[in-house]
Amino acid sequence: MERTNIRETPGCAGKRVRLCGWVNMRRDHGKILFLDLRDRTGLVQLVVIPDHEAAYEVARNCRSEYIVDVAGVVKLRPGGAERSGTLGSIEIEVETLSVISSPESPLPFEVGEGGLEDLHLDTLLNNRNFSLRNGKTQAIFRLYSLLLSAYADAMRSRGFLEVKTPKVVNAATEGGANFFKIKYFDRDAYLAQSPQFYKEAGASVFERVFEIGPVFRAEPHFTTRHVNEYVSLDAEMAFIENVGDVMNELEGIIREVFLTIAENGKEDLSLWGADAPASVSIPRMKLTEALQILEKEFGKKMEGGEIDIDPEGERLIGEYVKREFGSDFVFLTHYPTAIRPFYTMTGPDPHFTESFDLLFRGLELATGGQRIHEYKKMIESIRKRGLNPEDFSHYLDVFRYGCPPHGGWGWGSERTIQQLLKLPTIKQAVLFPRDVKRLTP
Amino acid sequence: MERTNIRETPGCAGKRVRLCGWVNMRRDHGKILFLDLRDRTGLVQLVVIPDHEAAYEVARNCRSEYIVDVAGVVKLRPGGAERSGTLGSIEIEVETLSVISSPESPLPFEVGEGGLEDLHLDTLLNNRNFSLRNGKTQAIFRLYSLLLSAYADAMRSRGFLEVKTPKVVNAATEGGANFFKIKYFDRDAYLAQSPQFYKEAGASVFERVFEIGPVFRAEPHFTTRHVNEYVSLDAEMAFIENVGDVMNELEGIIREVFLTIAENGKEDLSLWGADAPASVSIPRMKLTEALQILEKEFGKKMEGGEIDIDPEGERLIGEYVKREFGSDFVFLTHYPTAIRPFYTMTGPDPHFTESFDLLFRGLELATGGQRIHEYKKMIESIRKRGLNPEDFSHYLDVFRYGCPPHGGWGWGSERTIQQLLKLPTIKQAVLFPRDVKRLTP
Repeated sequence: MERTNIRETPGCAGKRVRLCGWVNMRRDHGKILFLDLRDRTGLVQLVVIPDHEAAYEVARNCRSEYIVDVAGVVKLRPGGAERSGTLGSIEIEVETLSVISSPESPLPFEVGEGGLEDLHLDTLLNNRNFSLRNGKTQAIFRLYSLLLSAYADAMRSRGFLEVKTPKVVNAATEGGANFFKIKYFDRDAYLAQSPQFYKEAGASVFERVFEIGPVFRAEPHFTTRHVNEYVSLDAEMAFIENVGDVMNELEGIIREVFLTIAENGKEDLSLWGADAPASVSIPRMKLTEALQILEKEFGKKMEGGEIDIDPEGERLIGEYVKREFGSDFVFLTHYPTAIRPFYTMTGPDPHFTESFDLLFRGLELATGGQRIHEYKKMIESIRKRGLNPEDFSHYLDVFRYGCPPHGGWGWGSERTIQQLLKLPTIKQAVLFPRDVKRLTP
Repeated sequence: MERTNIRETPGCAGKRVRLCGWVNMRRDHGKILFLDLRDRTGLVQLVVIPDHEAAYEVARNCRSEYIVDVAGVVKLRPGGAERSGTLGSIEIEVETLSVISSPESPLPFEVGEGGLEDLHLDTLLNNRNFSLRNGKTQAIFRLYSLLLSAYADAMRSRGFLEVKTPKVVNAATEGGANFFKIKYFDRDAYLAQSPQFYKEAGASVFERVFEIGPVFRAEPHFTTRHVNEYVSLDAEMAFIENVGDVMNELEGIIREVFLTIAENGKEDLSLWGADAPASVSIPRMKLTEALQILEKEFGKKMEGGEIDIDPEGERLIGEYVKREFGSDFVFLTHYPTAIRPFYTMTGPDPHFTESFDLLFRGLELATGGQRIHEYKKMIESIRKRGLNPEDFSHYLDVFRYGCPPHGGWGWGSERTIQQLLKLPTIKQAVLFPRDVKRLTP
């Protein structure tokens, strides 16, 4: 008999079905046993009565997280007609039941029906293979999967080619910091901190490229916003007029992606009490303006020599644009040249760049901008940073034979889900997160 | 004026359009200048006559690979009506022309209109940023992008969740060989050789997962089939009855993927004179049978103590199944336990496994099988290999609390394109390949 997914059972009233899944909970009501059965598509109640003697014996010994194979008849529950079509409207009267697999050790905690908010983060992550059995936790990764496909679909429909670029690289790209070093046969190599050089190379020939891939940052951060390995949604596009073209494209993609998530992720969003932002129209604000607003509206003055904004400032600007423009997003633009990488295009005032950060509800989600595309200007920019153009000879090849004006972005995938669901840390949005202390599971 | 993609120009006869792209070639016919203009969508002829004086002056100085911005009127070419709708049917009578960017150094070679088959592989790869401007070379990566999306679409439609698992791992997974070592803050870590443990963890909770991601193999190979970093199309599925379920699923996906490539990649395939396999129906053959066929049909006897097949044997079996079954594919099954990883499910005869290799036109494309899902059996299997179960404690957590029967595969993405296009080496199917000697560009 073919297996039916639990989600399909309300449409099978009166029929015999075979289900496989996990016992989410067992309740003993005198003679009758109730098992909540969970599979990847839903949760349904199994009813086991003593008449089905063999099944009843198995059910009596079943405990939480037993994995079972069950056959029975789909019946309407008392009052189920009112909830017609939902999993609450039916139950399965079990005829046969067998255990496929059962725990060898006491469970670390109950999977339960709600969330695992009471657990300490380390308990959650140390037992990741088990905590992922929780339905609300699974919702995070269903939404994450949806984000990946929504991004890829939006990019393809706009003529971007999907590329895969190397993660093992020869040189510590952007000046040397924050790279993990690898022993690569008889020499040293590094883990790519971003696909920057390779996506620019891609755009210089394919015009429009995108990549979904891991990036590695050897930053000794202990924050709720950082992990040392994450998945970046990258893009690079050529033949732009200016950085505005890049922001326009990203804005359209953001709109499409969140529309898809809102439509196809409804149930999972509601498990977290979350809403995907609707009608995306993203205000643009110079960083210097943002700093003035911070001071005027929130009495916050950024310290330090260079013009910059900190996470608290980003959060407050997020509040401000929500209040003033009803927007969940804002582009902050014109970051100082001194705090942007050497390949960033400078503006009419060379102290400022044609670059942006995209904030989502006050959290930096993406960074992007126009890049330098002139060979001589790039060499000059490398020199100005005290770097040696010879160390960048392969990158310079992208410009040596002519290169169209181009720009793009890197967008943190896990942060998007963190912020969408208001997760206390990005680590909850990563299946198996890596931080300074955590390399397992 | 908005830019038009070259592909759209045949539909714009009589209209004024703006195009941007690369000068593929310039021809000087007395007074009239012809430029072939290339963008990501096609190649079209520009005609520049002296009447448009400024444009003519610019065109006179244009050389191959100049990047230009041009406006002009789309005209039918003499005899163009016969090729109506094609790029050969029209030309652009140029009115304005400006150079966006031009080479700073002599070109390493001509991009040309055909392929770059005459170039030495090292010339092709050392100048990768430039050789990718060649249209036939670009076709490889358009087909590659198509493969990625076709795989993801096929997986999603079958209920697989897309996951991203860590590439930085704690332990040298499958026994220790062939791992790249990383300096991870104050300790050692390794680059993941496959997502095996993590995709099994995924299947143990989400039932069906797939991943498209890089894998890293520190194998000192010098073959046409190996690179040290490649992109694997992975999958793992739970609640299987046996390895046949895994092969059935993969067979269906192969069918869908190649159908999509055949339909949407037609032009690029024809540039390479390649055909995507049609009507996929994959014969299954025990490895021992395959060895008998090799001996009987080809007089080839495998040497060495353990039952195994070598690349030449795979190639011959590919010929055999094409001849006998008209199939481009074959599943070789029942590999000996001794040459499969410890987590592979053994069969009724414990010397053989419930595993398979998928050959495509005689090249191993994917490897898969059923995995051990019982906690105690897994510990026993680890011990039998002389390994220490304590080194696998996180992996064992996947089974400790019960685990459904499951299996899956790893499928080499670049090899697929290599074999489809009959490329002499897999390195041509990787945008920026990594091998023992090559870390750049």
